Amino acid sequence: MLTIWTYDWVPGGENGPRGFVRDLRLRWACEEAELDYQVRSTSFNDRGPDHFAKQPFGQIPFLEDNGITIFESGAGLLHLARKSEKLMPRDPAGEADTLQWTIAALNSVEMVSVPWSFLGGSKKPDNGLSDWLGSRLSHVEAVLRGREWIAAGRFTVADIIMADALRQTLAADMPGYPIIRAYIDRICVRPAFKKAYADQLAHFAAGD
Amino acid sequence: MLTIWTYDWVPGGENGPRGFVRDLRLRWACEEAELDYQVRSTSFNDRGPDHFAKQPFGQIPFLEDNGITIFESGAGLLHLARKSEKLMPRDPAGEADTLQWTIAALNSVEMVSVPWSFLGGSKKPDNGLSDWLGSRLSHVEAVLRGREWIAAGRFTVADIIMADALRQTLAADMPGYPIIRAYIDRICVRPAFKKAYADQLAHFAAGD
Repeated sequence: MLTIWTYDWVPGGENGPRGFVRDLRLRWACEEAELDYQVRSTSFNDRGPDHFAKQPFGQIPFLEDNGITIFESGAGLLHLARKSEKLMPRDPAGEADTLQWTIAALNSVEMVSVPWSFLGGSKKPDNGLSDWLGSRLSHVEAVLRGREWIAAGRFTVADIIMADALRQTLAADMPGYPIIRAYIDRICVRPAFKKAYADQLAHFAAGD
Repeated sequence: MLTIWTYDWVPGGENGPRGFVRDLRLRWACEEAELDYQVRSTSFNDRGPDHFAKQPFGQIPFLEDNGITIFESGAGLLHLARKSEKLMPRDPAGEADTLQWTIAALNSVEMVSVPWSFLGGSKKPDNGLSDWLGSRLSHVEAVLRGREWIAAGRFTVADIIMADALRQTLAADMPGYPIIRAYIDRICVRPAFKKAYADQLAHFAAGD
């Protein structure tokens, strides 16, 4: 039995993070691979030593698997990918492609998009990162022009993290990028995403 | 034979990136693991379709391994780690710890430190990211207070990427963080780092 740890509650409303908190990525992967999992909560408002012992930056999610705890959603996804061929192909070329695009979502897209959002996003376009973000998104748009999935010619964990990273960016009123938008729509229509998303909303609503 | 691709040249001088370009991470890992490798160059000034076909963001490094090309330095490191126990332990707990700290360097440290540098770093402390970076570095400082290596109780690829990410950040006249500084010194005194660093400087100097 896998355990996904998330907060007991996060703020709701238009600017709250519900529907975007990163436990979603691990829920989604478990749903895709039909892995047996449960979700447990740590306090959002009171992050104590027990929390920092498992997630040294005081964030979530972290994953427990048979006595091993692993933090960082990207690390959790790659850990889960080793458990099921549904999340990552087993041939070396497909595995390398899945790995490189998973890391690209974390270190080429989110490394720009998350600070861009932090600095005000599209509400503050002079935040100094908009041109850099535009360049990164244009490169992703060019790649997606010719393919249905981001890696390996099939659905993988790289789609989970790339679609989620892009969804968070374009949700912030970023105009343009029709090919990226079509990609997000294509990935997020999957039943596993819809279940993970609904489950997260219900989880945080129960904490109100 | 592995091939590490980097630029043929990058600007030198005080503000140039020599000594920090990310092919260093792959050179370093190959040196640590005594893997057979060569370094080849792609044009810095003229990034054409052949380059973008292998690195969709027009960056370097990328790694070639027996017909497979893999971009993103973090992905290259995790790919190399599968080849040698010197880079990552083989027990599940040690492997998970190495994986989570490799991803943490990419998505918890660099996701803040690289945009912070891009926006002016310590020369422009009102860039909006300084408090966030300070918080992240304080958490890393707290973790390193009790350990010699960042993961698994031994040297791993997580030390390569974490020490390199921290080295780049503290090189930008960031004051404080004595425990992080001692960690960087401890890691970067390794012969494999020194050889990779000297080789990179010589490579770019040859392009002048």
